[in-house]
Amino acid sequence: MSRSIATVSISGTLAEKLAAISAAGFAGVEIFENDLLYFEGSPADVRRMAADLGLAIVLYQPFRDFEGVSAERLARNLERVKRKFDLMHELGTDRLLVCSSVSPDAIGDDALAIEQLGQLAQAAAQAGVVTCYEALAWGRHVRTYRHAWKLVNAVNHPNLTLALDSFHTLSLDDTPDAIATIPGERIGFVQIADAPKMNMDVLEWSRHYRCFPGQGDFALADFTAQVVKSGYTGPLSLEIFNDGFRGAPPAATAADGNRSLLLLEALTREALGSANPGIVEPAPLYHPPAPPAHAGWQFLEFAVDDAARQRVANWLEKLHFRRAGQHRSKDVTLYRHGSAAIVLNAEHDSFADAFFQRHGLSLCASALRVDDARLALERAAGFGYQPFSGRVGPNERVVPAVQAPDGSLNYFVNERPGEPTLFEADFVLTDVDGPTEVGPITGIDHVSLSLPAGSFDAWVLFLKSVFGLQASAAVLLPDPYGLVRSRALFSADRGLRMVLNASVDPHTATAEAVRAYHGTGLNHVAFSTGDIFRAVTEFEAAGVPLLRVPANYYDDLDARHALPAELLDALRQHNLLYDRDEQGGEFLHAYTETLDQRFFLELVERRGGYDGYGAPNAAVRLAAQARQRSRAGHRDDE
Amino acid sequence: MSRSIATVSISGTLAEKLAAISAAGFAGVEIFENDLLYFEGSPADVRRMAADLGLAIVLYQPFRDFEGVSAERLARNLERVKRKFDLMHELGTDRLLVCSSVSPDAIGDDALAIEQLGQLAQAAAQAGVVTCYEALAWGRHVRTYRHAWKLVNAVNHPNLTLALDSFHTLSLDDTPDAIATIPGERIGFVQIADAPKMNMDVLEWSRHYRCFPGQGDFALADFTAQVVKSGYTGPLSLEIFNDGFRGAPPAATAADGNRSLLLLEALTREALGSANPGIVEPAPLYHPPAPPAHAGWQFLEFAVDDAARQRVANWLEKLHFRRAGQHRSKDVTLYRHGSAAIVLNAEHDSFADAFFQRHGLSLCASALRVDDARLALERAAGFGYQPFSGRVGPNERVVPAVQAPDGSLNYFVNERPGEPTLFEADFVLTDVDGPTEVGPITGIDHVSLSLPAGSFDAWVLFLKSVFGLQASAAVLLPDPYGLVRSRALFSADRGLRMVLNASVDPHTATAEAVRAYHGTGLNHVAFSTGDIFRAVTEFEAAGVPLLRVPANYYDDLDARHALPAELLDALRQHNLLYDRDEQGGEFLHAYTETLDQRFFLELVERRGGYDGYGAPNAAVRLAAQARQRSRAGHRDDE
Repeated sequence: MSRSIATVSISGTLAEKLAAISAAGFAGVEIFENDLLYFEGSPADVRRMAADLGLAIVLYQPFRDFEGVSAERLARNLERVKRKFDLMHELGTDRLLVCSSVSPDAIGDDALAIEQLGQLAQAAAQAGVVTCYEALAWGRHVRTYRHAWKLVNAVNHPNLTLALDSFHTLSLDDTPDAIATIPGERIGFVQIADAPKMNMDVLEWSRHYRCFPGQGDFALADFTAQVVKSGYTGPLSLEIFNDGFRGAPPAATAADGNRSLLLLEALTREALGSANPGIVEPAPLYHPPAPPAHAGWQFLEFAVDDAARQRVANWLEKLHFRRAGQHRSKDVTLYRHGSAAIVLNAEHDSFADAFFQRHGLSLCASALRVDDARLALERAAGFGYQPFSGRVGPNERVVPAVQAPDGSLNYFVNERPGEPTLFEADFVLTDVDGPTEVGPITGIDHVSLSLPAGSFDAWVLFLKSVFGLQASAAVLLPDPYGLVRSRALFSADRGLRMVLNASVDPHTATAEAVRAYHGTGLNHVAFSTGDIFRAVTEFEAAGVPLLRVPANYYDDLDARHALPAELLDALRQHNLLYDRDEQGGEFLHAYTETLDQRFFLELVERRGGYDGYGAPNAAVRLAAQARQRSRAGHRDDE
Repeated sequence: MSRSIATVSISGTLAEKLAAISAAGFAGVEIFENDLLYFEGSPADVRRMAADLGLAIVLYQPFRDFEGVSAERLARNLERVKRKFDLMHELGTDRLLVCSSVSPDAIGDDALAIEQLGQLAQAAAQAGVVTCYEALAWGRHVRTYRHAWKLVNAVNHPNLTLALDSFHTLSLDDTPDAIATIPGERIGFVQIADAPKMNMDVLEWSRHYRCFPGQGDFALADFTAQVVKSGYTGPLSLEIFNDGFRGAPPAATAADGNRSLLLLEALTREALGSANPGIVEPAPLYHPPAPPAHAGWQFLEFAVDDAARQRVANWLEKLHFRRAGQHRSKDVTLYRHGSAAIVLNAEHDSFADAFFQRHGLSLCASALRVDDARLALERAAGFGYQPFSGRVGPNERVVPAVQAPDGSLNYFVNERPGEPTLFEADFVLTDVDGPTEVGPITGIDHVSLSLPAGSFDAWVLFLKSVFGLQASAAVLLPDPYGLVRSRALFSADRGLRMVLNASVDPHTATAEAVRAYHGTGLNHVAFSTGDIFRAVTEFEAAGVPLLRVPANYYDDLDARHALPAELLDALRQHNLLYDRDEQGGEFLHAYTETLDQRFFLELVERRGGYDGYGAPNAAVRLAAQARQRSRAGHRDDE
């Protein structure tokens, strides 16, 4: 379907907005009245600007408080709307969004509204434009698309159509089923917005917290599937009021907007395909390659210099990682333990080197094992993520990769039976038997990132679109120096789990880490183990500094879960944290102290299908880390 | 009354919190359960820490979901609460806050609740502690203090008392009148919180948006007056859940908390005094000197170097300011126009010099004419603002001053008939006739500041407590690069008007200005005029660059206000903005372009009692400024 976006969705002057929208790949744009009002030139100038950028102006909006008025007021409203029709001619658009009245003195009489909307339709016909009537969720009398459609259908005039907006429907927990029953040609415009579920006034929610499809909690593929079933062939247009987007650079926001619509189309296609195998798409929906059916970490790659390599290697050795290989042509070393692999890259004049120069010791790449690397790259590139290729030495494998929102690389790695593995191709293996068991670590459970608040939703979209991950609801974690927003994303088989963190406040550990990394960075890597008591015993004996847990925690844990005395003692003795889910699944975990005041490691044991990340313990961990920093005098009290 | 604060109100580890609370001058502290849970030591360690800091632990909290349960559950709850009583003994406190149940399966039966709260009271008596029962605004059955008091009164046991919290009462628009009828000795604890009026879920509102008294919109002096009338003599304790405070340095937050209670006591005293002249305060309320009855600007002082002085002087001369004097002993120049006076301070090794080194060209001091400077200083110092004295030359006047939250100075200046004015004392006046009319400017209408978001509420408290200003509700202004929060404060006679601005987003002009100033700074100075058409004509002719207003603005203005064609033409011709209030008061104003990409000037004419600041035009001005910056390439797109 054709993709459009309202100018209110991104930041900047009107000229900057249009340029960013065009560059992102949109075909159309809705002009918001205020953007025109603040613009220095005439509506005709805007028309030329859009045309030069290859953008169709698909709608002008909003027109408010038209219907349900006295005869005298109606005459004034018709005058008012005719001025807008003139302006639309100058602007070169034929569609006007008319919102259901919010006026406190609007008359709640459907017959009157029908009569007056009929006059609007006639005026529109005379002017050669089409009006699109939308039910605002906080309208005075008309709040649902069903009600709006009842009025539009009764007027029965081609110049008065129905406008749909996913927010207005889904924010009221209204069902979109009836949309499919409306004739598509009677739907004049469709706006799409997602939002996190929030328990607040719907107007405030709408004005400040909307986000791009896939970043919030609404079931938008279901909504859009109903739109497709109606036969609607017009644009899908993003209308996003978001305080963060208002302050973010417009090019990146617009690019995310465009890919969010591509992802929505792909998911709508799936929703339609499974529910109605025979349906014909009235307008073709975007059809990317399927996301990887299985994905997992092949290795994590850190950018290091000689000194940082020494410090990380020292930690890895205490965690009983083995030095397992040396890259054939580069200054790159491989460490392994169980199926967990860590690569330390100190190669001069490389991508890793550039990353190290900018970010210091940091996670510069993640290699993901997928079932089809070529398709995975094709899918990622289709969503507009930049493919990357570095230098490849003789006999080394070319590994397809894209850049994540922080500029780090995501490699896609195939491992096919009979073919040499990536490690065999690129490394001189000193540990030729492969990933045999060397200790209690079995692999990587999850990777947690510290992000600038402004890139949080960009990452959600990246992980959802490239890897097809699902997202849990976001939670707020209390760090002693400020709140941290946290959200987990995971693949269907849980082979890939990522946790995103961003500080609400400037003083928390996450914000400090982001500053330390100049933009983004690793929060921690969690290694999985089948025997966490053995793991912490071995690692403590080897000198791994574990984060100390206060005694009061165990008293409280006992009060909450009534644990067997033996288990409680063992947890206390090993500084282990504990969580239990409603099905009895258990999570035992421990943290190391922080390395280079940047990131730390976690050891986790999942029992009985526990599927979370120990969120109830996050505050205890954050407080212990804050004490550690406070003692070390690292608090930035500016 | 004795002042206390809950540990949850400020950031940091428990040790940092207690130190900050003690340093701020509080007598008591409420220990929040989680702070104890995250603490490394024992409750006895906390007791010792507090005692060493001279802090009484006045309450432990919260205890949840006690009443309205089955007999079996009651037995468990009594076990649970006895463990807390033991912990309280270790902690050295005798008061426990018990919140009304929020459990979905709580039984809504007052007789049952009374019976069970009676058992709680008996257990408390055995343990030698006092329980304080509080109605949460979102309680399952008990939501108002009247309902909670009905239960507590029926139990009629000294170890079960009523706890009050201003948020829970005022968030529901409940009236506090009945508090005065409750016997003071039956009120066990009083918590105080303010909040901005918000249309959202009360639990979310309470957990994230509370603020210190005076920073929000609640009528807290009325609430507290009822508490005083009841005869309550215990502490007033701040319990503030605020996302911003969680991320702010604890010392400054605690200091603001303490002064907010002092201000609340002073205002409560006034509320009681006027309503009940004969009332005896059961516990003495803070009694500072009255705020200035009249205040206005004597001068604004800018920190400059030679080059910046030249640039500012050049602007002032185009605005027909006269160079009116030279300081007797310092490199300080005085400019005047009407009653507006600007001082440019380039003195080496002075306060202004230090300010210039840190902030560049900036507003380093404001001199306020008040009716009693000594009393004004005493009042400010009583609220904990730091008095300041600089070097004084021979025959110069010692001018009392305090430091504002950004470190700039606020001088208090007396002008008594017959005494030499400050200008006569300190300056060699080249313009001996004083502030005679030199052009269309009559004085300073208002001063607008650009603040870091974290210091916004500290400024509100500063202006309210030191000058007794009132505050309008905060508004959100759309800058093309992000939202700006704005709030006006003003004195009763409007002699002093200040507008505070802080960016919600990092990319707006306000945030840029704050960055440019390294912390805080002037947004603009608005000069008043009685004839704005004459003013802009003269100033444009003199070469003052006025901000251009788009033609579309005037079309829209016409549509909104139906102005006489002549007025509309005149406005358009002079790039003037226009606003009209509901009483027909009018506001005509114009802006200059930005000086040094930092601040700008405004010219305003108020007609017919207009009392606002042209808020509907702010977006037009912000967009025009954004275009100006965009053209100049100053957008920081990081």
